[in-house]
Amino acid sequence: MIERLAIVGIGLLGGSAAKAARAGRLAREIVGIGRDRGRLEPAVADGTLDRATTDLAEGLGGADLVILAAPVLANEALLEHAWPLVDTGSIITDVGSTKAGLVRTARRLAETRPLAFVGSHPMAGSEQSGYAIARADLFRGATVIVTPTDTTEPRALKTVSAFWEATGARVATLEPETHDRVVAAISHLPHLVADALVDAVRRFEPAALDFAARGFRDTTRIAASDPVMWQEIFHGNRDSLLASLEAFRAALDALEALVRRDDAAALRATLDDIKRAREAVR
Amino acid sequence: MIERLAIVGIGLLGGSAAKAARAGRLAREIVGIGRDRGRLEPAVADGTLDRATTDLAEGLGGADLVILAAPVLANEALLEHAWPLVDTGSIITDVGSTKAGLVRTARRLAETRPLAFVGSHPMAGSEQSGYAIARADLFRGATVIVTPTDTTEPRALKTVSAFWEATGARVATLEPETHDRVVAAISHLPHLVADALVDAVRRFEPAALDFAARGFRDTTRIAASDPVMWQEIFHGNRDSLLASLEAFRAALDALEALVRRDDAAALRATLDDIKRAREAVR
Repeated sequence: MIERLAIVGIGLLGGSAAKAARAGRLAREIVGIGRDRGRLEPAVADGTLDRATTDLAEGLGGADLVILAAPVLANEALLEHAWPLVDTGSIITDVGSTKAGLVRTARRLAETRPLAFVGSHPMAGSEQSGYAIARADLFRGATVIVTPTDTTEPRALKTVSAFWEATGARVATLEPETHDRVVAAISHLPHLVADALVDAVRRFEPAALDFAARGFRDTTRIAASDPVMWQEIFHGNRDSLLASLEAFRAALDALEALVRRDDAAALRATLDDIKRAREAVR
Repeated sequence: MIERLAIVGIGLLGGSAAKAARAGRLAREIVGIGRDRGRLEPAVADGTLDRATTDLAEGLGGADLVILAAPVLANEALLEHAWPLVDTGSIITDVGSTKAGLVRTARRLAETRPLAFVGSHPMAGSEQSGYAIARADLFRGATVIVTPTDTTEPRALKTVSAFWEATGARVATLEPETHDRVVAAISHLPHLVADALVDAVRRFEPAALDFAARGFRDTTRIAASDPVMWQEIFHGNRDSLLASLEAFRAALDALEALVRRDDAAALRATLDDIKRAREAVR
């Protein structure tokens, strides 16, 4: 049982963490922190938060567990601001999509004042955002990647993992750098590719959009995601994203070459391998 | 009312056309034609077909409406074989994903014996295939693109459009070449891109597949489609596909350049345009 849970940023992920904590009685008190008082009100009004504040020091004081759920880049600055304000003994995590930068910041901060930070990444986003679509069961059945390093305090890893498991998530651990490579391949690259697909069609063959069927709609659903959030994610994970993009281009070049030279047998064999790889994804 | 409907190929699309015709009482008799007797049996056993045959001449004789629902390349050869076997006055259509080649074949055949052909493309596929997943309501709410040319007999266009409308589809007409450009952009390019995504991840970062969430799954769902069917579609629409691919590469290059030079404002503006274009897709 957490005595006081403080969540900075009450959007889809922060709001869902609060709702899951409330529904599962995971914390005695839940405090929401945000820059805009008006945006926090709905979560107080519906009983998800016990209280809300725009004052970081006030919100963080006395919290055993702090979850940073602001946009990716804001989290790095937030961690700097939060560090001196947090009680000794409290544990900090986040919900951002990139980890290496944040973990580096935490390591640097830990040189001045040791505190227990471990990164989290719930793989449970949406092309929509905001508290209005937050739900207590968002993490149920989802994977949350937790990213300890060799200097992470065991109790931080334990507390944070236990929190996510209590929300119904499956917890996996990866080193921060591995995490960033993995999510570049499985999430950030598909986003960039879906964006490029929509961009190509709207520029090159806009009338075709009237004929979009399920194939196009599914393939490009994530291209409707929040532009600010994704600009920050692309920035935050730039190196891994560019490496993934290089692998994607190589795969696309190889497929194009097979189409161009009409090599039916080789193209079928490759498509067959791809089909099997895709079918193995749960 | 169609007196006799003959369908060549009783898979997902041919089987669904038969089921829709049966459910809507659109034809007095429904005949299924295929190469493999055993594969036709289930559709006779469940009452979808009145009879089934592996003999093209026997199956086509006396049919008012013939639907070619074999794979794309087989349809071109089938059209050649069927042409002399079909009754004068009967109308032929197909359900293939590419049109320019088939329409060219029909035009050439019409020089020797005038017959009424008009192409159809129901935008209602699936990554799965086969009669087992055919359903009477597959076309309900879907778009069927019909591709008349300036030499198409008006009664062929009318009969074929009326048939699809009676299955619950919305019918749109496009010239065959326009159709092929449109579906290259909206269907064949997304397929190739989804294939390349899966191929890149399975080669470059296979462990990442364990962390696939909804974004990756949706973006790559169509990469599990039938390899033979898609090799034929890529072949059949190669020129339009390669043109679409060029547009896609230009869009991807432009996005990559924004990520690479960390131009937050320009990247957000582009992502915002993309988001709006995607949201406008019904």
